[in-house]
Amino acid sequence: MIRFPLIVLNFKVYPEVIGENSIKLAKYAEEVANEYGVEVAVAPPITILNRVVNSVGIPVFAQHVDPYLPGSWTGSIIVEMIKESGAIGSIVNHSEKRVILSDISIIIKRLKENGLIPLLCTDTVETTRAGAALYPDILAIEPPELIGTGISVSKAKPEIVAGAVDVVKKTNPSTRILCGAGISTGEDVAKAIELGTEGVLLSSAYVKARDPKSILTSMAESAIKTWEKNQSSR
Amino acid sequence: MIRFPLIVLNFKVYPEVIGENSIKLAKYAEEVANEYGVEVAVAPPITILNRVVNSVGIPVFAQHVDPYLPGSWTGSIIVEMIKESGAIGSIVNHSEKRVILSDISIIIKRLKENGLIPLLCTDTVETTRAGAALYPDILAIEPPELIGTGISVSKAKPEIVAGAVDVVKKTNPSTRILCGAGISTGEDVAKAIELGTEGVLLSSAYVKARDPKSILTSMAESAIKTWEKNQSSR
Amino acid sequence: MIRFPLIVLNFKVYPEVIGENSIKLAKYAEEVANEYGVEVAVAPPITILNRVVNSVGIPVFAQHVDPYLPGSWTGSIIVEMIKESGAIGSIVNHSEKRVILSDISIIIKRLKENGLIPLLCTDTVETTRAGAALYPDILAIEPPELIGTGISVSKAKPEIVAGAVDVVKKTNPSTRILCGAGISTGEDVAKAIELGTEGVLLSSAYVKARDPKSILTSMAESAIKTWEKNQSSR
Amino acid sequence: MIRFPLIVLNFKVYPEVIGENSIKLAKYAEEVANEYGVEVAVAPPITILNRVVNSVGIPVFAQHVDPYLPGSWTGSIIVEMIKESGAIGSIVNHSEKRVILSDISIIIKRLKENGLIPLLCTDTVETTRAGAALYPDILAIEPPELIGTGISVSKAKPEIVAGAVDVVKKTNPSTRILCGAGISTGEDVAKAIELGTEGVLLSSAYVKARDPKSILTSMAESAIKTWEKNQSSR
Repeated sequence: MIRFPLIVLNFKVYPEVIGENSIKLAKYAEEVANEYGVEVAVAPPITILNRVVNSVGIPVFAQHVDPYLPGSWTGSIIVEMIKESGAIGSIVNHSEKRVILSDISIIIKRLKENGLIPLLCTDTVETTRAGAALYPDILAIEPPELIGTGISVSKAKPEIVAGAVDVVKKTNPSTRILCGAGISTGEDVAKAIELGTEGVLLSSAYVKARDPKSILTSMAESAIKTWEKNQSSR
Repeated sequence: MIRFPLIVLNFKVYPEVIGENSIKLAKYAEEVANEYGVEVAVAPPITILNRVVNSVGIPVFAQHVDPYLPGSWTGSIIVEMIKESGAIGSIVNHSEKRVILSDISIIIKRLKENGLIPLLCTDTVETTRAGAALYPDILAIEPPELIGTGISVSKAKPEIVAGAVDVVKKTNPSTRILCGAGISTGEDVAKAIELGTEGVLLSSAYVKARDPKSILTSMAESAIKTWEKNQSSR
Repeated sequence: MIRFPLIVLNFKVYPEVIGENSIKLAKYAEEVANEYGVEVAVAPPITILNRVVNSVGIPVFAQHVDPYLPGSWTGSIIVEMIKESGAIGSIVNHSEKRVILSDISIIIKRLKENGLIPLLCTDTVETTRAGAALYPDILAIEPPELIGTGISVSKAKPEIVAGAVDVVKKTNPSTRILCGAGISTGEDVAKAIELGTEGVLLSSAYVKARDPKSILTSMAESAIKTWEKNQSSR
Repeated sequence: MIRFPLIVLNFKVYPEVIGENSIKLAKYAEEVANEYGVEVAVAPPITILNRVVNSVGIPVFAQHVDPYLPGSWTGSIIVEMIKESGAIGSIVNHSEKRVILSDISIIIKRLKENGLIPLLCTDTVETTRAGAALYPDILAIEPPELIGTGISVSKAKPEIVAGAVDVVKKTNPSTRILCGAGISTGEDVAKAIELGTEGVLLSSAYVKARDPKSILTSMAESAIKTWEKNQSSR
């Protein structure tokens, strides 16, 4: 359904992604994905999610989804809505959209029941162990204090990334693990994969880049190269 | 920009409105609006808002919008997003999506600065007086205990509707006032307008009707007839 | 620090526990605890927590605590406050006071660092597995749909209680496990302990009883008897 | 019930106010109040509220209260609890503990019905106009961006203070108005009263002062002097 190594581009709701720009940024991502054979997914603003799905062939995630069943929940975003829009899954519990524990569990369950992929965000080794126990398909560890800083978690806090990889593999080996926060260069991506992750989650380094395609190209190359090295050394 | 009397159809996220059904329900609304010369607006789920805008010529509202400026707010819905999608405005502070006071104020201000219409929901005469002091273009009083019951606020609690009309007109005469909760028939709409409102906000009575177009037709006829009687008696 | 089997009496903020009544209900609990040699703890309203501590010798829990360090958090309840008041620990993430995952983790850590006992509430086997991964000293599984119903979780949903016991012991054997929701009689307590729990969490059955001491006596007797049977059969 | 000019000291949950220090800081406040004939109220952490009430004769406020009636609301702080503890009223909607509009209205109503004083916080002229429409006994305007900065709202943003005074007096003349944020010196207090307020709300400048009593003395002198000048010039 989705391949690894995986680069997830979270567009957030930056000024750079309102409207057609999201489609342009998604198309760049698709071009790089096709050229380098690396899986790249995008998470555009919810209002343009369906238009992005219709414009590109790469996986598209929602940035957030609520736990509710269809019903009287004015203003909510439910699983059936993002599925109908063509999303392949949803980010869950991003540090900018935290969710109570019981709802995280419901959201993961509802996404899976609807054939969608939960990508759960956590912030520490402890919450990663707890999150992995909810069996998400993908888990991304993102220490929030590094988000948007350009200081890569994979270089600044390798012990947290390695610790998260370790607890995820012990708790639920079938959960795939990414890391995020400050990922800005190909080198950051390489380091992340060397630490045992299966990809990265990033945002501003791509969305706000003067040349997003070039940044992503460098990350894709690093991802594939490091990934293959890891595989052959196993 | 928007005319009165006004019937706002809040689609919520009922099973009946996921996907193309929203477009069908919006088209019925447009047909009735055109035939009877009454303004009908729809508020579809956020993921299909843009598609509804592209399918009909009637005003389309978002069901909720967050107070943030464009930036790193993963999973949020900001004013620029709903504007780009073609919404004419947004419901604010619906009883199923309550907002803190300071954010209500920011949302109303940001919507207006972007040329969009805030439709503020309140629940009592007291909160209506407070809400009117924030100068929304439209205010809808909806006692939450009647929402979805089929017991119309205009018949069951006329004193609350009349009280809300009174405080709105005293606080800010240019704010237009609707009422909602339990509105199910043309008679409920007539009663609402007799009490001084300038329209209604409803949801399940339309969305879940076996024949939504027929229900709306009866409401539109009642709205126009009562409205004209009110006007001529002034 | 705390002994098992354990009966935790959550006073909530029922009309029956405002003011001195909390002290009376805590004293009854102490009398039963002393008479039957079973550990009984109480969780009174936060405003009377210190007075209860000063009135009885049994363990006293806070009902909730916030994750913040001392600082500018007007209106919050922090770990240092409940410690200074003499609490032995705090309920965390009660179904009536849910907390985001990252804060649950911080609260558990801060309680332990301050020598206090976290009593984490969860609602399903899944969230129990996640919660146990945060290594709370005590975990109580409480399916919220049974809270306050008088239908005991231990009789109505034994598979959930047994499932929770199982995942807790697999995840972190040193976490003690209680169950709650609908616990109303000595028989309910016996059944809970037979299923592998080490006590119960209850509220209205004690607080709202015509004769709270008599109800608690029956529970204490059942708890001790079933506990000893369990021990001897191991 | 309470006199003006009024100085309200919000203790927040600073390290300086955990435990007995709150009582010491409340006693200093009482000494200054008695010596200078100015009304000084304190808002200590909720766990020590009752002990402060029992230690001093000055008015004591809660920092926050929830809207609920007595019942199954584990971890909440309800009006009956703070009343039983001897509080004279409660801060409502502090910028560090924001509340949804409908709950602000309920809290104000419930406090008044229980003979307690709501002290509502707002942040702008707009939310002050809305807040005043809910008829709180006291309203404090506090632009959150100045809180804790030592830059006084009364000097840095006199137009906001004057604007708030104006809308409060127009909306509900019987609501008393304070200002807060950055109030650090007697001069700040004088300026606040010159702008038409009836007192101030402050926190760190008192709580974290090397000599809190001396700071408060200077504020009390300024308050009384400016107040009397204002009165005689009317």
